[in-house]
Amino acid sequence: MVDNVSEFRRLDLLFDELFPICRSITGPGLRESLDIVSEHIPLEIESAPSGTQIFDWEVPKEWRIHNARLVGPSGEVYADFQDTNLSVVNYSEPVDTHLSLEELDSHLYTDPDLPEATPYVTSYYDRTWGFCLPHEVYEELPEGEYHAYIDSEFVDGFLNYGHTVLPGESNQEVLLSSYFCHPSLANNELSGPLVLTSLYRRLAEWDNRKYTYRFVLCPETIGSIAYLSEYGSHLQDSLVGGLVLTCLGGPSDHLSYKTSRRESALIDRTVKNLYEYGDNLFEIRTFTPTSGSDERQYCSPGFNLPVGQMAKTVYGDYDGYHNSLDDKEFMGIESLVDSTDTIEAVLQAFEYAGAYKNQKPYGEPMLGKRDLYPNVNSPDRWKKTDAVVNEREFLNRIMTVLNYSDGEHAIVDIADDYGCSVHDLVQIIDVLFEHDLIQSLPCSNQSY
Amino acid sequence: MVDNVSEFRRLDLLFDELFPICRSITGPGLRESLDIVSEHIPLEIESAPSGTQIFDWEVPKEWRIHNARLVGPSGEVYADFQDTNLSVVNYSEPVDTHLSLEELDSHLYTDPDLPEATPYVTSYYDRTWGFCLPHEVYEELPEGEYHAYIDSEFVDGFLNYGHTVLPGESNQEVLLSSYFCHPSLANNELSGPLVLTSLYRRLAEWDNRKYTYRFVLCPETIGSIAYLSEYGSHLQDSLVGGLVLTCLGGPSDHLSYKTSRRESALIDRTVKNLYEYGDNLFEIRTFTPTSGSDERQYCSPGFNLPVGQMAKTVYGDYDGYHNSLDDKEFMGIESLVDSTDTIEAVLQAFEYAGAYKNQKPYGEPMLGKRDLYPNVNSPDRWKKTDAVVNEREFLNRIMTVLNYSDGEHAIVDIADDYGCSVHDLVQIIDVLFEHDLIQSLPCSNQSY
Amino acid sequence: MVDNVSEFRRLDLLFDELFPICRSITGPGLRESLDIVSEHIPLEIESAPSGTQIFDWEVPKEWRIHNARLVGPSGEVYADFQDTNLSVVNYSEPVDTHLSLEELDSHLYTDPDLPEATPYVTSYYDRTWGFCLPHEVYEELPEGEYHAYIDSEFVDGFLNYGHTVLPGESNQEVLLSSYFCHPSLANNELSGPLVLTSLYRRLAEWDNRKYTYRFVLCPETIGSIAYLSEYGSHLQDSLVGGLVLTCLGGPSDHLSYKTSRRESALIDRTVKNLYEYGDNLFEIRTFTPTSGSDERQYCSPGFNLPVGQMAKTVYGDYDGYHNSLDDKEFMGIESLVDSTDTIEAVLQAFEYAGAYKNQKPYGEPMLGKRDLYPNVNSPDRWKKTDAVVNEREFLNRIMTVLNYSDGEHAIVDIADDYGCSVHDLVQIIDVLFEHDLIQSLPCSNQSY
Repeated sequence: MVDNVSEFRRLDLLFDELFPICRSITGPGLRESLDIVSEHIPLEIESAPSGTQIFDWEVPKEWRIHNARLVGPSGEVYADFQDTNLSVVNYSEPVDTHLSLEELDSHLYTDPDLPEATPYVTSYYDRTWGFCLPHEVYEELPEGEYHAYIDSEFVDGFLNYGHTVLPGESNQEVLLSSYFCHPSLANNELSGPLVLTSLYRRLAEWDNRKYTYRFVLCPETIGSIAYLSEYGSHLQDSLVGGLVLTCLGGPSDHLSYKTSRRESALIDRTVKNLYEYGDNLFEIRTFTPTSGSDERQYCSPGFNLPVGQMAKTVYGDYDGYHNSLDDKEFMGIESLVDSTDTIEAVLQAFEYAGAYKNQKPYGEPMLGKRDLYPNVNSPDRWKKTDAVVNEREFLNRIMTVLNYSDGEHAIVDIADDYGCSVHDLVQIIDVLFEHDLIQSLPCSNQSY
Repeated sequence: MVDNVSEFRRLDLLFDELFPICRSITGPGLRESLDIVSEHIPLEIESAPSGTQIFDWEVPKEWRIHNARLVGPSGEVYADFQDTNLSVVNYSEPVDTHLSLEELDSHLYTDPDLPEATPYVTSYYDRTWGFCLPHEVYEELPEGEYHAYIDSEFVDGFLNYGHTVLPGESNQEVLLSSYFCHPSLANNELSGPLVLTSLYRRLAEWDNRKYTYRFVLCPETIGSIAYLSEYGSHLQDSLVGGLVLTCLGGPSDHLSYKTSRRESALIDRTVKNLYEYGDNLFEIRTFTPTSGSDERQYCSPGFNLPVGQMAKTVYGDYDGYHNSLDDKEFMGIESLVDSTDTIEAVLQAFEYAGAYKNQKPYGEPMLGKRDLYPNVNSPDRWKKTDAVVNEREFLNRIMTVLNYSDGEHAIVDIADDYGCSVHDLVQIIDVLFEHDLIQSLPCSNQSY
Repeated sequence: MVDNVSEFRRLDLLFDELFPICRSITGPGLRESLDIVSEHIPLEIESAPSGTQIFDWEVPKEWRIHNARLVGPSGEVYADFQDTNLSVVNYSEPVDTHLSLEELDSHLYTDPDLPEATPYVTSYYDRTWGFCLPHEVYEELPEGEYHAYIDSEFVDGFLNYGHTVLPGESNQEVLLSSYFCHPSLANNELSGPLVLTSLYRRLAEWDNRKYTYRFVLCPETIGSIAYLSEYGSHLQDSLVGGLVLTCLGGPSDHLSYKTSRRESALIDRTVKNLYEYGDNLFEIRTFTPTSGSDERQYCSPGFNLPVGQMAKTVYGDYDGYHNSLDDKEFMGIESLVDSTDTIEAVLQAFEYAGAYKNQKPYGEPMLGKRDLYPNVNSPDRWKKTDAVVNEREFLNRIMTVLNYSDGEHAIVDIADDYGCSVHDLVQIIDVLFEHDLIQSLPCSNQSY
């Protein structure tokens, strides 16, 4: 643990350690990355052997890449795995052959819209090989014989993922999930795991946690499907909300929340409430299964878990998406710290956003005997000064929370109706809780 | 059957055969009309004897009309049943009397707003007699003695109706119902039965029918009440949707759908979806019990069946409603063919509009191994060409249908949320069905 | 009883009898006031002894005030209980002491915004004493020694309230509740009890009452809490709606309805319907627990009764609120008569607003045999004259009420959908009821 360096410095160093590694959905690069993160979060690393059936999928063979190079007619190197691991199609089969430019062409990938960028290309489930290069290089390739060389292998190995749990007062869980599977990409690869480490360290220091927090780091899609095949049933029983973390850096000045499939789960309503009434800026995207990250798996109809997705500079919305422009400079370490701040505030609100039950529901409780109500009711008490205005506002919120805390209204709904943010009711809830006037009710996966 | 003539020609001939017949809610004209239609749809004709109690009603005596004539002081014929059967009040009692113009006046019916038209007037449940004539003729009637002659009789007979069933894969049924009870009227009488014959013949040729189709032809109001007294309980068990067909010709350039009483039954949502996203133009009318056709009976509170009404140039919205202007020229045979096209498309959409269940609901199914997902994920795949755009759109729709096919969302709801028509998802559903990725769920009368 | 004087005259006299009495939440003034009202409503007076635990509260000792006077250095009387009972803080402890202006200051209450008004101040649950005086008097108080004299006592006594029941056809109840606890105030004290007496006398003369009406008069807050501790469980079983009456006089030209906590209870929907479609003007306020009258107790989450609040010139919206400007001239006796008229009309609508069940729900009932449908259906029947228009409208309403009277739609919902007021359907309901075509369904506290 690197407790004595600032969060910024820690993230900066961790980024530099992780960025060069060639990750894929399986293989040594993935394992090495998980091990590095384990120094920041106490991840338990699990593994599913190649060939394991996980729902409709099968764990593929492990891909191990050692080297790759594309050499032109005069010996010029046009793509070199040693320069950038993006230059080889991820999951390429081994090849060592000489061929003409025409024969080579169908194995070359570029992005004509971004001629200076090397695109990121994968072919996980169909055996092929290929090189990725900037379109401006591709356009200048001379005729002649090329040497395509990829030193890779497919072995019976493992699909790996890591997870850990930070216990809270309740067994009910909040999921924070991100992914490792892209090689040297920043916003759409490292931003999520890095923010995950910061969130772990911050939540570990909270005075108390109402919920238990589960941190998951897995290869995208097949990793979360593998995770669900092991823990899906547990999550169905215990999960009250969750966030998939993706693309949390970059220049955007606000976070962007994609709702869970339920669209109005407690986590969805909480973020919408903060969007409407809080200081932090959000953009709200309605759930879609057509694009996104692992929330597509958590929200598949068989699970339909209350898991949304938190992003900042969203995949597909920026030029560098899935190419070499998605680097540290574009992502920005400071942007990750900002995202961490906002997500921590969301989780703080979420801890209070659920339902409470008024313990004195028959008539109004007598607030006066608890010093929560002014004992002399005179006209100037409620006028003139800011202090008096605030005192009246405090009392109004107390009466509102008490009246609607009937087990059917969550705090977030009460806040919405009252026109304030969940954060604005935190002090009220603490006071009422101290006076035994309300009790927290467990959330149910079904009702939230 | 007249398989070898075009639909237009067939309808044209059938119209000419049916138009001159004097129909009423009972009697020989009704039976003759049902018999003629039986050559186009294999109707089973049923009958309820006069005096039969059907819910709050009783089957009236049969009305048989042989002749009717109103002769003026100088022998001029002012109304003649041989010229038009509209000239006698439907269900007139027999009369053979001489009386003054003043005495006659309360037995004469005209429409002052349409002086050249002979109105259509009925008095089913109150014994009286009368003549209908153009207001311009009425205004020129000379003083003197008139001879009112109506040769009709009331006999213990039957109320008749016809029906047949076109079986489908499921026992769940779709009802298509129209009526016979007006004498020589076109849009508001023959358009419905004629379109019914075309729909029968088209649906009979569909490669497969998911639902069983029930075709009903009965006198309006009392006929559908009689039908419900026999088959209402069966329909409550098996009906998933239905349409009453009325006024399907005329100059209007779009169909007009009146929702079922439920307002958001599956059939209602399907038509609304096509209205919103489809090529065909519709107008949507919300259910009302105050006017309309037999949907008022199917949607009476004791049955509350999911039956809407499909019309084109709607009763009450055109001058010719219930008078001699409602003739073949006004209705137009071509208009009926257009209506048939649109209703057939509605039924095709309805076959797909219900709920399906994702058979691989835990995580996303692996689409790649079924060749439904591109195995190489590279940037230019999703750019540039229309083909690629369409491929991405196809994939998005596949993922959308899979994710929401959880037994709670019907396809029509998924289409609404996605912003496309049910027709746009037909190909997707077929593909997913072929790959055993979805299964059709039975509709329930209650839930739809 | 004063049957032979007009309502205005009766209220005028009753006002003058009640106004001078020094009421509080307990004590002889409250009992005397209840006794006076008992001459107009046959109230049963109940009592809870001091020290009785009522939910979270305890009945306080009774406060008895005999005299109070604040005398200045030169013998000038600055506050005198004999002049106005507002001049002493309600529930002041006894005092007989000489003190300087500086020492006296924290015991003096004024309203600087209304310098000529004597404010109304209470300190029920915290022992203190004080005088209330106009701010303009306060500002001129000379330095010197003052004599503060309050002759009051706290004794083990009773909390009193009165109630009575006016039986109806059903045991289901409507609550009309107002309060007595302020001394000489008009709009925010006497308007409610006075209107309550008028409503009792009018409802007693109705030809029939569908519901049983319960009239309650109690000190605000603690009185309704005491009432609920005795009768809350009975009200949960039997109450279908209720109104708290407060501030029913004053210059406002319309009533103002605060919904029950349920916001769409039958009583809420009824008032909203009359607001939307009726002649009477209302303003609708959504329920809040932060201010108001005894609806805050009836609508506490443990009871959540369907009780709204009816006011006219609302507390807090007028200068005279809780001070000596709230007098007879401001309130106006005529204003109370107007409020009574409107509330009586609301209750008349409420009697019809619930659900009925169509007794002939299978198909349309045959209206013709009951003379509710024209037996000859001819074009000019539905045209030309107002009489015919009205006849058609009558028939439409009959068919609408019949079709939707399925036990799931209350009349108020049918009226809303149809676009008319509940009053507009009263005649229809009476006719259908006479013909045994509908039956009234009991309301349930839960469903309404």
